[in-house]
This record gives sequence, structure tokens and C-alpha cells, in this order.
Amino acid sequence: MIVILKENPDRKQLDFLISWLEKQQIGIHVSEGTHQTVLGLVGDASRVDIDMLKQMDIVEDVKRVQEPFKKANRKFHPFDTVIKVGDCRIGGGGVAIIAGPCSVESQEQITLVAKGVKKAGADLLRGGAFKPRSSPYSFQGLRGEGIKTLVAAGREAGLPVVTEIMDLSNIDLFAEVDVIQVGARNMQNFELLKELGHSRKPILLKRGLANTYEELLMSAEYIMVSGNENIMLCERGIRTFETYTRNTLDITAVPALQAMSHLPIVIDPSHAAGKASFVPSLSLAAVAAGTDALMIEVHNDPARALSDGAQSLTIPAFEKLTSQIRKLESIAEIGRN
Amino acid sequence: MIVILKENPDRKQLDFLISWLEKQQIGIHVSEGTHQTVLGLVGDASRVDIDMLKQMDIVEDVKRVQEPFKKANRKFHPFDTVIKVGDCRIGGGGVAIIAGPCSVESQEQITLVAKGVKKAGADLLRGGAFKPRSSPYSFQGLRGEGIKTLVAAGREAGLPVVTEIMDLSNIDLFAEVDVIQVGARNMQNFELLKELGHSRKPILLKRGLANTYEELLMSAEYIMVSGNENIMLCERGIRTFETYTRNTLDITAVPALQAMSHLPIVIDPSHAAGKASFVPSLSLAAVAAGTDALMIEVHNDPARALSDGAQSLTIPAFEKLTSQIRKLESIAEIGRN
Amino acid sequence: MIVILKENPDRKQLDFLISWLEKQQIGIHVSEGTHQTVLGLVGDASRVDIDMLKQMDIVEDVKRVQEPFKKANRKFHPFDTVIKVGDCRIGGGGVAIIAGPCSVESQEQITLVAKGVKKAGADLLRGGAFKPRSSPYSFQGLRGEGIKTLVAAGREAGLPVVTEIMDLSNIDLFAEVDVIQVGARNMQNFELLKELGHSRKPILLKRGLANTYEELLMSAEYIMVSGNENIMLCERGIRTFETYTRNTLDITAVPALQAMSHLPIVIDPSHAAGKASFVPSLSLAAVAAGTDALMIEVHNDPARALSDGAQSLTIPAFEKLTSQIRKLESIAEIGRN
Amino acid sequence: MIVILKENPDRKQLDFLISWLEKQQIGIHVSEGTHQTVLGLVGDASRVDIDMLKQMDIVEDVKRVQEPFKKANRKFHPFDTVIKVGDCRIGGGGVAIIAGPCSVESQEQITLVAKGVKKAGADLLRGGAFKPRSSPYSFQGLRGEGIKTLVAAGREAGLPVVTEIMDLSNIDLFAEVDVIQVGARNMQNFELLKELGHSRKPILLKRGLANTYEELLMSAEYIMVSGNENIMLCERGIRTFETYTRNTLDITAVPALQAMSHLPIVIDPSHAAGKASFVPSLSLAAVAAGTDALMIEVHNDPARALSDGAQSLTIPAFEKLTSQIRKLESIAEIGRN
Repeated sequence: MIVILKENPDRKQLDFLISWLEKQQIGIHVSEGTHQTVLGLVGDASRVDIDMLKQMDIVEDVKRVQEPFKKANRKFHPFDTVIKVGDCRIGGGGVAIIAGPCSVESQEQITLVAKGVKKAGADLLRGGAFKPRSSPYSFQGLRGEGIKTLVAAGREAGLPVVTEIMDLSNIDLFAEVDVIQVGARNMQNFELLKELGHSRKPILLKRGLANTYEELLMSAEYIMVSGNENIMLCERGIRTFETYTRNTLDITAVPALQAMSHLPIVIDPSHAAGKASFVPSLSLAAVAAGTDALMIEVHNDPARALSDGAQSLTIPAFEKLTSQIRKLESIAEIGRN
Repeated sequence: MIVILKENPDRKQLDFLISWLEKQQIGIHVSEGTHQTVLGLVGDASRVDIDMLKQMDIVEDVKRVQEPFKKANRKFHPFDTVIKVGDCRIGGGGVAIIAGPCSVESQEQITLVAKGVKKAGADLLRGGAFKPRSSPYSFQGLRGEGIKTLVAAGREAGLPVVTEIMDLSNIDLFAEVDVIQVGARNMQNFELLKELGHSRKPILLKRGLANTYEELLMSAEYIMVSGNENIMLCERGIRTFETYTRNTLDITAVPALQAMSHLPIVIDPSHAAGKASFVPSLSLAAVAAGTDALMIEVHNDPARALSDGAQSLTIPAFEKLTSQIRKLESIAEIGRN
Repeated sequence: MIVILKENPDRKQLDFLISWLEKQQIGIHVSEGTHQTVLGLVGDASRVDIDMLKQMDIVEDVKRVQEPFKKANRKFHPFDTVIKVGDCRIGGGGVAIIAGPCSVESQEQITLVAKGVKKAGADLLRGGAFKPRSSPYSFQGLRGEGIKTLVAAGREAGLPVVTEIMDLSNIDLFAEVDVIQVGARNMQNFELLKELGHSRKPILLKRGLANTYEELLMSAEYIMVSGNENIMLCERGIRTFETYTRNTLDITAVPALQAMSHLPIVIDPSHAAGKASFVPSLSLAAVAAGTDALMIEVHNDPARALSDGAQSLTIPAFEKLTSQIRKLESIAEIGRN
Repeated sequence: MIVILKENPDRKQLDFLISWLEKQQIGIHVSEGTHQTVLGLVGDASRVDIDMLKQMDIVEDVKRVQEPFKKANRKFHPFDTVIKVGDCRIGGGGVAIIAGPCSVESQEQITLVAKGVKKAGADLLRGGAFKPRSSPYSFQGLRGEGIKTLVAAGREAGLPVVTEIMDLSNIDLFAEVDVIQVGARNMQNFELLKELGHSRKPILLKRGLANTYEELLMSAEYIMVSGNENIMLCERGIRTFETYTRNTLDITAVPALQAMSHLPIVIDPSHAAGKASFVPSLSLAAVAAGTDALMIEVHNDPARALSDGAQSLTIPAFEKLTSQIRKLESIAEIGRN
């Protein structure tokens, strides 16, 4: 951490500052320029309160030198984390495909989709039971019942399942779920994150609509600090000024998060685009960029879907796409290096 | 709602669409242009699923004509909602002042600040017990103990208290709290909102960092639908490309939300600016724009605050500001009309 | 265009509105709902002034049904525009590669890069002579001399050249240039766009940092209206809250702009990422998404480049990348359909 | 400037770096931590190329300590710049009011508005002759003829005039204009800025829709470096995700730009809001925040305005507003301190 002092700092206050830092086991290097004195802090500066530093009268600005996340940081964990879910491995090469409808609507529907995507080559089944909808008047999901239905369909089709948790009071309902998803709107629901740190299940953590990579990694850090290190980072589109698409897929998240962190990356082109017709191009782009996994919405009858039909692929369209994805995989390996 | 059809829509599909809408008690007016046919939907279109409509083959686009919020909508509730907290009224004219530290740190600290802001003219005491911090390594608040401490200080100083809830599992700890705050990061924590709808306490609902007025009002709607209509809408700065300040205060939220809704508006200049030196200008601007309330961070010793010290006013600075605010109030009344 | 009236519109004002529209050859369909009357405008509504409509006392809102761009609109020009530059064709299939340094620095440097990228498989040579730098204290480019130097290097290496114009007063200096680039900061420099409409040279039009697809297409429309229809649309990264990369590449621009328009798309991953190490992943992603062209920064000695060295590939790195791009091309063809 | 090195930097490269810096008259302080070595650069580091530094193999990151703008920087010029235009002084206390229509439409219209706003207390007359419209099919302004008409109306009413330049080729037409405006879309039209640096007329420089304070000040710096130091900085709304208003007024620009720079600040609430009904609240807010000037759109007949009618005040509404502004001025003086 670098502390930039104002011109001619009061000597007494400077002494106070230095002793306050030393009490925190922080070493200090002083660089005095003609106009500006700069303190370089040495040691574990991650616990020093930047706000408190900035408020001090003699301090002009404070700049961090090191990332504030550690457990998620590739610098300290150079090798890719590989997460095993059933027979599938996510991370460390290859592209896992997660597919299924936005919402679980009925046993019949989800079983039909589960078998369809399995046949087409999917590795995991997704389906929403608790649905975060911006309107209280919209369909809110089948909730507990939806989870049971989803798990049953997954077991029948031979696919592990991933579904979203919206509140930690519901966590007992997720006992049979294979991967727990934290949605974009809950990325900074810190009480929930802490609780999930005590779970042994892999967590699929979605990036918030207006959050940075660092904030996403700090949220992963919240889970990891509590003991659970099986986290997949999911980019699902960020909010931009463009209104033609629902959100804007940040494809650079793939190489950037892989450079910053050892955790595997999942790209969700369906929520990002909000239009089924763009999902194939974006999926292939993500594979070419080196993503570890894709999460794609597939519905047996998109026009009658109870939520987000506009962005769902039909089963045949998904089948065509998976065959293209598999072709691309070998070349993507090149791209990653 | 307006449904714009593609050129030469398939007759059968059009018949299906029309009968599907009619089953939902929706009347339909058809306008046929040279290139484009447009359906005007009449009746309570708020329950019609826009996503499903958009997905249909013959539909090019769907545009909403009416706002999707009702209980929060000024159109249907023309008079200002006035919320009573102790002796204070928020809404309907005048400026209520909420003040206090970012975090409750100790009984001594919060009591000192409570008495100081009371003397300076504050109407409510704020103080955080559960703190949403982006880093798991930062101070997380005194939690349950902090609430007790805050309530005691408020009672002693004669001020009602407002503090933030982070998870619905903690709701019993808020029994003595006068106003429950929902933070920006939880604005779309829908399970929490639903639960707060069953509370009788006023809710101070903060706008998310990248959310629109409509989304804020939809979140208010979630609470109102469950039965609690005592909601204050709080603008606390939005995320923009500007990094010189912490966030960017959207001052237009005052007249805009007052035009859209009957709910009272609270402006929080401290979190918006992140710098104490800008808080007076922004507070006065908010009053001149016609805000119903201000929420201002005040600390007995900002340089030693455990969180957000950089944006806290000292008690004397707050005293000077309240006297300016009171002078402005009469002129602000003019501004509102 | 759809005009939504306020409840109980004044009859006289409504008559005025209708006759005002009819004078502009606009047909009107009236839909009367229980609460709301809606007018559907039929005919060429693109010249009706939306602002004027919105201001009228009886009007609540106005919504456009059709895109405001025509010449750039795929609806009216279903076939891909193919632009020929020398032996290269941009648009209609295949990926053209534009490569070269950010700035032309000397005859020796640009010739060395030109020969290097030609050998590696580039189709066009880029190089900046007029440089838009945010600081007046930074290197501003070799200007007129730089253009001559660039053209000479292109001729020697057998590559057509593309370079940026910053002001229409310099247009005579571009006589030997093959493609004129309009930079992101000038995307809405409308006087410049009009003038370029009178040129016969292809224009490479960069999207502004915070502009939408529609605004980009309206800027293309400015050029096309004046007579020049040879325009390439270039996505070079948009401004978002992410600061880890210079800008955020909007990969969805590829399928989205191809759906909206018949003009070819160029992706510039170098300016978007600002880091050379991400350029290969992003380039391959763009090809997989179906881009018509790539524009990649290449420098003989990035560490000593006078501008933007951090995002430039070395010649050997570019050579490796082009061979990967060529492998991907056939699969990208699939992606586009 | 602070240069953070990678762990275990190559000794030879470090020597090269140090000697390269020393050649530029830059002193260097080295702080060696356990993991990280940091170089503090001392001297005029504003000319050191950050991009080049960042690209070097041994460099991890570079952070600036000082602002890159000098002539516009309050640190080096502590006293407010006061700009005299006719009898009016802008900056240094008090609120100047600039008023007039978006576009000059006819001699009769502009004269009528000029006299109306003069009587209501305006200090300057504004009116657009060159109009930057996003559509080539919209009214483009009366151009040269419009300037003559505006100047005549200003002379007749006794008001200096301000109008926008769109291209430097038109500069001779501005000989009689008192203040030259640079629009938001041209804020980084650097060739235009350089040329205006040779003018002796005051420049009203508008902030771009997605630009930061620092970028605005760097654009001011472009003009100042060429010799013209009479610049007013204008905040006219930034682009955010909110679509209810046209743009979002950044009210914090008032205290923030006043802290960063000595140049006077102008607030344009009309373009920011896009709705006349919000202009009074926002104007009063700006005065309370301490703005040096306001720029307000006024039209004799907003419903028939050829551009931006929806955001224009009528003359009587403007009259009411100016009387409120004048009342607020004394209190605003307090706010500024």
C-alpha cells in the first residue's frame, strides 16, 4: 500500500501515523520528493483500513499495490482449481456444458428437457426453482417443490443438477442439489456467502450486473474464507447503455479472470443476450476465448415458457450448437495459451 | 401494452395469440398500417408475460404503455404518503434529518453522537450494526449487540433509530428498532422484501448502485404487496465512470421519484460523495430540489471511525449544516412547486 | 410510431394534433382503451419530430416502432455489403485482418512492421498519423508526414492502408490513403461525417465509448445519406465500470450489428483490452462469433512504442495468432448461421 | 508516479529502466518490501509515458500520484478565475444566468426570447445555429445565418451571446459571438480544442456524456496550453442506466470541479433532465450547491420548437424561476464555504 502525504505534513501527526502503522506490524519506507512525501507500507497491508488512512489530515491519497483477495488469487495458487461434479470436471481444460430451462415448470417438462440435453451432450442440468423476478406480479418459481422435481429429473437423465438459492433460510431444501447457484442480485449478499462457506457443495457464483472482477473475487473470497473453495465464477452479462440486448456479455472476463484467479469460469450467454438467436455465436466465442464451462438455457417449448422464453434454445437448436462447441474445443485449447 | 407484429403475420398464429390474450381478459385493438400491424392491449396487462409475447414467431416487439408498479404509483395515489416515526413526519413537506455514524462502535461512542446530533437538530439517529463490507477481512459490525447499543443511545437522546437488516434470519433482533433499512446491495433481495412486507415498521429502501427508478419502485411494490406501505425511497449515489467521488448522487431522483410515486424521498449525500467536504453542498442541493429527508453521516472522531470515516462530518460541522438546511427549507417549498 | 395520450385528452388539442400529423402525410389509427387512448401513426414517421410530440399537453409518451436508420438497415437491404480494398474483400464471409502499429513513428519502423504483418498474412496495414491523445503533453503523431510514410510502407509491402482522420480540414492529406478511419471520439462529429459522405473511399467508423448500436448506425447513416455507402462498423470496446482492462469488448456487437445492418463488422481487440496478453483470446472469440474483420495492433518493439505499447503484439506473436485465426475461419462460418 | 515492480526483477532491465528515467530528469526513490519493490519517481513525471512503463517486462503496475493537468489545476492557481463577458462576471461568487432557445429558428423568435429572458434577469443569451443532431433527417440548424440572427437579437436586447461551434472550418462565422460553446460530443475533438486555444473569446466547454472530471480538465488543458485561459466548465448531464430522464445531472460536479480547478462551473439542467418540469428543482439545487452559472433553455412556444421543445421553459416559467434563484443566491454563498 502506498500512502501519499500532503505537502509539508505536520510532524506530530506523521509520527502518530507511523506508530499506528507499526502497531499493526506494518513496515514503512519513506520516499521524500521535492513536493510530495510517499510512504510505502510493507507487510500484510490487507487489514489496514484504507478509509481511516484517507481521512487523516496529512494524507492526500492512498493507493493499493496488491489485490485485496488472497484465497482466490492465482499469484498464491498458480494451478487451476478443478471442480468435480459427478463424472464431470470443471476447470483445467475442456468445456463443461450446463443446460436446462430458466424455470422448472412441471415434472414432465423438466424431465423432457433433461433427457434432451443429456442426449445432446450436456454435462449438468440447470433449472430455477426460486426465481428472482423484478416484479412481484410475475411467476416466482415452484420453490421447494421445484427443487425436488429438478433433482428427480436429473437423477432420471443421469445429470447432476444446479439451481439457485435466494435466501439462506431455504438451505435445507438444497440437500440433494449438486451445485448451488448464487444469482447476480445476491453476489453481495454477504450473510448468504458466509453461510455457503460452510457447505461442501460447489458454488456457482454469478457476477452482479454492475460489479467488477475484483468485487466478484472478493465475494468468492467471502465463501472461501469460511472453508468452501469449490467456486465457479460466472459471467452472465453486465449492464451497459445498450438496450438492444438484455445485457452485454463481457467476453474478456474469460482471459482476465483466468489471469487473476485459479477458479474456473462459466459463461452464460443466454441471460447476457436475452435473445436465443445470439446464443450460438456467443457460446462459440466463449469457447474460443477459453472458457471452462457454458450455461445455456434450453426449453422444450420456448414460446410457452413461464419465464425468459425469448432467450431459450429449442432442444434441436441446442443439439446443433453442442456439436459445434465440441469441434471448437481443440482450437480453444490453443487460444488459451 | 402495444404488440408490434412482423410483416405478413401468419393468420393461424395471430388467431392463437388473440385467443390467448382474450383468455386473460385482455381486450385488443388492431391497427393495420401499410407495413406493420400493431395490437393495442386493453385491460390489466400487467400480468401478461412480456417475455412470452416477445418469443412468439409473429411478434417483432412489445412495448409497455403503463408503469408495472401500482401501489407505489402516484397516478393511483395522488396524495403524498406521510410516515410518522416518533414525533417526526417524513413526507408531505419539510425536511427530516437522519444522522449518526456509519457503524455503531461502542455504547460511549454512539451515545455521544446521539446527543450531539439531537442537540444540532436531527430527527432520527442512524447507526450500522450489520455492515455489508466488500471484503471479508474488514470490520463486519457489532451485529445484535450493536442494535441494542444503538437503541439504548436513541432512547437516551430521545431519537427514534434506523439501522440496516442484512438477512431475514435476523429480523427478531429488530423488534426495538424504529425504521428498518434495506441496503443498496439488497434492493433486489426479494425474499427479504417479501418478509418486510409483513412488518409494521417503516422501511427505508435504498436504491441499488446500478438500478433505475422503476426497479426501485418495483422493489417497494414487493414490500407493499405484502401489506406494508410505509416505505421511504433512498437515493445514495449510483455507480458511474467518475472515480473522483465514491458514487454519483442522482439529484434528479428527488423530483422524478416525487412525480412517479407518492412515497417520501430520502437523500444520502455521505455515501454518494464518500468525502465529507462535499456533504454540505450536496445536502443543501437536495433540500433546494425538494427532498423529504436527508441521511447524513456524523462521527465524534472521523479519523478514528471503524468504517467510512472519510465521509463523516464532525458534530460541529453537522451543527453548522443543519442551521443552513433549516434556512433553506422555506425556499425549498417553492422549488417543489 | 405510437402516441400514448393522457387520460381524457382535450378534444380541441386532439383535433389539432391529428390535423398536424395528417399534414405530414401520416395516417392515424386510434385505439381507445378504458384508461388510455393510443394513436398508431402509419406512413413515413421518421421525419415526425418526437420531441415536439412529447411536449404536447395531451401526450403522455411516444414510442418508436421502426428503426430511425434506413440506408444502413438490413430490413431494406437484406444482402451483405462487400467492400473491396485492393485485393481484399470485407464482408460477405471470411475474415479480413488489418494490422499495424498504433502510431507511425518512422519510415524504418513502419516498413519493418508492414513487411512483417504482410508475411504473417495481414490484408491491410494500419498506422496512426493523427493521434487523438487525452493529454496535450503526449505524442500527437507525425500528422501529414506520417501519412506519407505509412502509404510508402504499404506500397512497398503490397498492403492497402487505413489511417485516422481527426478533422475535415486535413482531408486533402488522405488522397493516397485506401480506407479512412473515424475514431471513437469523433463518431458523432457530424460535420466530419457529412464531408466523408462525399468521399469515394471506404470509411472505417468506430463506435464511441458510450454509444449504442443504433447511434453507431445513425452515424453511418450520416455518411450514407451524403452518398458514400462503403462503411465498416468497428467495435473497439466500450466504457464500463471494469478498470482491470482499458475498455470492455462488446462481442455481441458482431451478431447484433449483423442482424440490424448489412454493413461489415470489424473488431478491434487491442484498444478494447489494452493488454497484449488478452488480444489472442479476444481475436479468436471475435472470429468464432462471425466477425468480418479484425484490427490488431502489432509493433516491432512494443516496449519502446511511442503510444499504446502495452496493447501491441510482437510480430512473432501476431504470426502465431493469424495461423490460429485461419484455422478457426471455417468453423466461424458455421457460427454465423 | 509510483512504479510497482514484479517480484525478483531482472537486474539488467532494472538498470535500463532507471537510466531511462534519469535521462528524463526523473529522480528515483527505491522502496524494497519483502515481496515487492516500488519506485517513487520524483520531478516532472507528467511527460513520462505510462504506457511504455506498463509494457516493460519487470513492471507490474504504475500509479499516478499527481493530476496530469496543470494550467487548470487549483493547486497551482488557488484563486478563482473570473471571466468577464460584457457587464457580466462568471466565477468568483454570484450566479450568472444564460438563457435562450435550443435552436435559433427565426429573427422574430430569437428576438422575442432575447427580450423576454433579459427582462426576467438573464445575463447572457444562448441559441444554437449549428445543431449536432443524432439523425441526419432532423433539423440541422440555420448555421451561418443563425449566428447572424442570434447576434442581432442579443445586441437588440443588450445581452452577450453564446453559441456552439461544430467544426473549426466555421470559426470565421463566430467573429461577433461573445462566448463559443464546445458541445459534449466534441469535448475530445482535440484539433478543434487546439484551434480555440488561439482565440481570445471565452470558451464554454461541455463535459462529454461519459467523461470524467479529469478528462474534462484535460480538454480544458488542451485549450489553455495554446494560450486561451478563459474557460467555463459545463456539466450537462451524463449517460447512466436511467431512461426516465434524458441524462443524469451530476450535481457533485459543482463542488468537485471547484476543488480540482479554478475555472468557473456552469450547470445546464435542461439538457440533463430533458423535461421542463424538472428544470426548476435542478436549477435551485445547482445554486444551493454553489454553481457559478446556469444555462437554461427558454422558448416562446415550446410545443412548436424545432428542437428539444420538451425541455424548454416558457418565458413566464423562466421569470418565476429567476426570482427564486436570486433569493437562493445568498444562502448558496454559505453552501460554498
